[in-house]
Amino acid sequence: MRGLLYLCLLLVTRCECEVVKQKIRLDNEVLKRSIIERTEETEDDSTPPPPSPNIVVLLADDLGYGDLSFSGHPTSRTPEIDKLARESLFFTHHYVTSPICSPSRASLLTGRLQVRNGIYPWTFNPMNFLGLPRNETTIATLLKDKGYHTMMTGKWHLGVGRQGEYLPIHHGFDHYLGLPYSHNMCSCPTCFPGRPCHENCTSTSVSCPLYSNGTIVEQPVDLFTLTSRLVKTAVTFIADAAASRKPFFLYFPFLHVHDPQFSSEKFVGKSLRGTIGNSLYELDWAVGQVVEALRQHHLLSSTLIWFSSDNGPSLTMHEQGGCAGLLRCGKGTTWDGGVRVPLFVHWPLRISPGRSDGLVSALDLLPTVASLTGLNISNLTLDGVDISPLLWDPLVVSPRKYMAIYPVDPNSTIGPLAVTNGTYKAHFYTQGSYLSDDDNYDPLCPESHPLTKHNPPLLFNVHHDPGERYDLSADPKYSDLLRDFTAWRKNHMKNMIWDIPRATPLDSRAQPCCTSTSCEPFPKCCDCPASAPHRSTPNSNDIHSLLFL
Amino acid sequence: MRGLLYLCLLLVTRCECEVVKQKIRLDNEVLKRSIIERTEETEDDSTPPPPSPNIVVLLADDLGYGDLSFSGHPTSRTPEIDKLARESLFFTHHYVTSPICSPSRASLLTGRLQVRNGIYPWTFNPMNFLGLPRNETTIATLLKDKGYHTMMTGKWHLGVGRQGEYLPIHHGFDHYLGLPYSHNMCSCPTCFPGRPCHENCTSTSVSCPLYSNGTIVEQPVDLFTLTSRLVKTAVTFIADAAASRKPFFLYFPFLHVHDPQFSSEKFVGKSLRGTIGNSLYELDWAVGQVVEALRQHHLLSSTLIWFSSDNGPSLTMHEQGGCAGLLRCGKGTTWDGGVRVPLFVHWPLRISPGRSDGLVSALDLLPTVASLTGLNISNLTLDGVDISPLLWDPLVVSPRKYMAIYPVDPNSTIGPLAVTNGTYKAHFYTQGSYLSDDDNYDPLCPESHPLTKHNPPLLFNVHHDPGERYDLSADPKYSDLLRDFTAWRKNHMKNMIWDIPRATPLDSRAQPCCTSTSCEPFPKCCDCPASAPHRSTPNSNDIHSLLFL
Repeated sequence: MRGLLYLCLLLVTRCECEVVKQKIRLDNEVLKRSIIERTEETEDDSTPPPPSPNIVVLLADDLGYGDLSFSGHPTSRTPEIDKLARESLFFTHHYVTSPICSPSRASLLTGRLQVRNGIYPWTFNPMNFLGLPRNETTIATLLKDKGYHTMMTGKWHLGVGRQGEYLPIHHGFDHYLGLPYSHNMCSCPTCFPGRPCHENCTSTSVSCPLYSNGTIVEQPVDLFTLTSRLVKTAVTFIADAAASRKPFFLYFPFLHVHDPQFSSEKFVGKSLRGTIGNSLYELDWAVGQVVEALRQHHLLSSTLIWFSSDNGPSLTMHEQGGCAGLLRCGKGTTWDGGVRVPLFVHWPLRISPGRSDGLVSALDLLPTVASLTGLNISNLTLDGVDISPLLWDPLVVSPRKYMAIYPVDPNSTIGPLAVTNGTYKAHFYTQGSYLSDDDNYDPLCPESHPLTKHNPPLLFNVHHDPGERYDLSADPKYSDLLRDFTAWRKNHMKNMIWDIPRATPLDSRAQPCCTSTSCEPFPKCCDCPASAPHRSTPNSNDIHSLLFL
Repeated sequence: MRGLLYLCLLLVTRCECEVVKQKIRLDNEVLKRSIIERTEETEDDSTPPPPSPNIVVLLADDLGYGDLSFSGHPTSRTPEIDKLARESLFFTHHYVTSPICSPSRASLLTGRLQVRNGIYPWTFNPMNFLGLPRNETTIATLLKDKGYHTMMTGKWHLGVGRQGEYLPIHHGFDHYLGLPYSHNMCSCPTCFPGRPCHENCTSTSVSCPLYSNGTIVEQPVDLFTLTSRLVKTAVTFIADAAASRKPFFLYFPFLHVHDPQFSSEKFVGKSLRGTIGNSLYELDWAVGQVVEALRQHHLLSSTLIWFSSDNGPSLTMHEQGGCAGLLRCGKGTTWDGGVRVPLFVHWPLRISPGRSDGLVSALDLLPTVASLTGLNISNLTLDGVDISPLLWDPLVVSPRKYMAIYPVDPNSTIGPLAVTNGTYKAHFYTQGSYLSDDDNYDPLCPESHPLTKHNPPLLFNVHHDPGERYDLSADPKYSDLLRDFTAWRKNHMKNMIWDIPRATPLDSRAQPCCTSTSCEPFPKCCDCPASAPHRSTPNSNDIHSLLFL
């Protein structure tokens, strides 16, 4: 009886929504047309768009739901990102698969949960010698096989391997320029050459290596010029792709705004937000440069841009670690502050600007791209779903029905700590994290909150209560819903096939080393001058000419 | 020495900012020109703008920093407000003078702190028989004296008086249609005619009166049709003013989004945010209607629109009371969640769209309007400052140097609990409030946190740390700054002249009553049909024709 009432209420609400949906659709259409007109004005009409779109994935690091000026932060300044977001479809309910870096990125590129990939527990550090399994199929592999040029510029964080065998060039990328992991994992004296370090560096790690394909070309990398070099590489790649008239895939995961923050001199002090403000401002500039390159080469209307972040803000860095806005807790936790991050998708030819409240995930990128480009993915076991129906009409019911949210250190006994259907979220377990600030006054965020089982699960209406403050689980009218969540989770756990964890084995001498892994004194001896790259892998593909543009 | 270093750092930062400021100015100028071009396209060039702008003040009720879609709330839908905000100068650091309604509104209209006006402690309730003193000078009085048509539609909340002697028509408004106080103060059985009440109503109060000038024309008011009637009145006023070619001042303080929320049927279920979402959606529609009326009468380029809120969200209503976004606590407290609210100013002819981080206050409206319209205010003792320099260039140093933040129940011994200079905020005292949610996990927000003195004051960098999480007061490098704050506050307290509190005396029979204040059974006997207005004050000015459009 209660179930029937619930269904009835749902139907009435859906019906009431239809009228306004029509108006929003009309408004969106008008805005879309205006953008297309402006795009067409500046583009060369003689260039027909390719049959499949180019794909550009721009991924910020540790950027929280509340970090953009667009999403309400008072002192952030992100004019380029804001402009792109306004011309895009913004997803208000977008979840990544993990509140930390490596697992989230593995899922983004493969459409599969980290527990299937083995990209857990936590992230890869410089001493790990495994990586994203070679038999995993990434978007890059699929698109390359379909004839796309593929390029990655930026932070990989899916493993290096003793011989570089897990680097991006072995996962479908024709070219790669970037860091293999987070720059806070590098040794202190050299992570910011010629300057005092901010914090958090260790002397037992090698200094930060910059890879060009499979070769270390700079160690320590000069972080202060890095972003502009990554941007030049991406822009040149776009120009080359335009000249060749072949479709392309550009994956640009930025080092920004992960701590310790850095930026080129010209971005220092350009916002009132301190070092993270500088970092964000350089990120914003970089995004603007990529968009401008696409515009200059008349490729904006034939390119789908996906902008997002890997996980929520690192609140352990206090006010300089990012901002989850109105969401609860941050990085390291399965609260929305850790796993719900901005996503917007830009493709003026086909996607109307606007907002969608549909439940979507980073997992959905691969199947959606497959759908848009006609890739055959029938042989893959995926956790992502094709969300392209939402791209054409943001008000339709999302093809994604549930999202399982795993902790930083998943295990098959406990499974996902939380499950959401986009309207409600049930926490079967909660666990704090040092990454969500041990000084946090919210008692459930810090590491001092141990893994805690909730029966019944804590239940929040994330539409009404995005801050997950007001637990509804004691209200009997939600018992059917809780049963649904419980059943779905049980079934999910039963059917999940766990791969072995890859981020565990360590060997100090497996660290990326420009000279020789047996050199002394280690790890300082690993440094090499930018002009003398030493260590390369058999399959490396030289792009030095791009690097030193 | 430390002071010198501090000054030096300030100068360097200011210098570094100059280059980017130039770029932002250029960008703003381009955007401004494009808006003017669009405005001019649709307006009649033969109508020269009046020498002084028309003034429209749109004031939301209990709307928090994080409540708009524009400011990042995921399920709010405010397309009209967002559009207006994008074409406006948005102030990221705008403070009201009080975390509750009446004092905040008194300061907005007079440019004077509530303690000078006597509009404390707390707010006026239906049994109070005093109001904003008749010798206070409001913006309406000043503009009316200068020949402006003046109109107020909406919620007054600055007192009624036994004979209506404190109503808006006695404070400079030619016309008034609206409620004299918050609709949650009305009696329960009739506050939502024909429907069950949501919450929070009392049976000892009269039902909600609707005033037209000095006459009660409906009691209980029909809240479900109220907003559309207020809008029609405002739109007709604009049309009449356009026809007369006289400048005008419209003050439109909405009932939305104060709890218990209501809206016309057509706005129910149009967002995913519940009843506050409905209320917000109707508010958004109303704002759109006012802007459209200005556009239709070719008045947009000659009208300054000031959009803001009276105080932060009422968190005691949990997820349905509003959202402070990333700010701490909410209504009733002197944390930023209580007193820092959105403000944007729209005047396409002269104000470039963009953002300003300059410290501004609702106190500044009157002197700024005076500056723009050439009013003589030399005889007034004001706490507001003319912020028009920021309107022309949002990157100049704000004319406002400090802002004193008073509690809900100020007294002259304790003075303002907090002081901000726009970059830092010092809390000399803190005190929780039931309006900031007794279930709040932040221990400083609920009423259980008593008035607590801090020596040294708690100190926050609100640019880096808008959530006021990380107290800096223990760091010796801030001791000079704390001394400055302490000295400024001491001087402020020494020079402040306190008026007697007006919101204290009560008389049940002083409540607005459509029939007779001596009727029985009281208060139910006060109800009257819409067609039979009874009680009027000598100075009432009939606008029934507008009311029933």
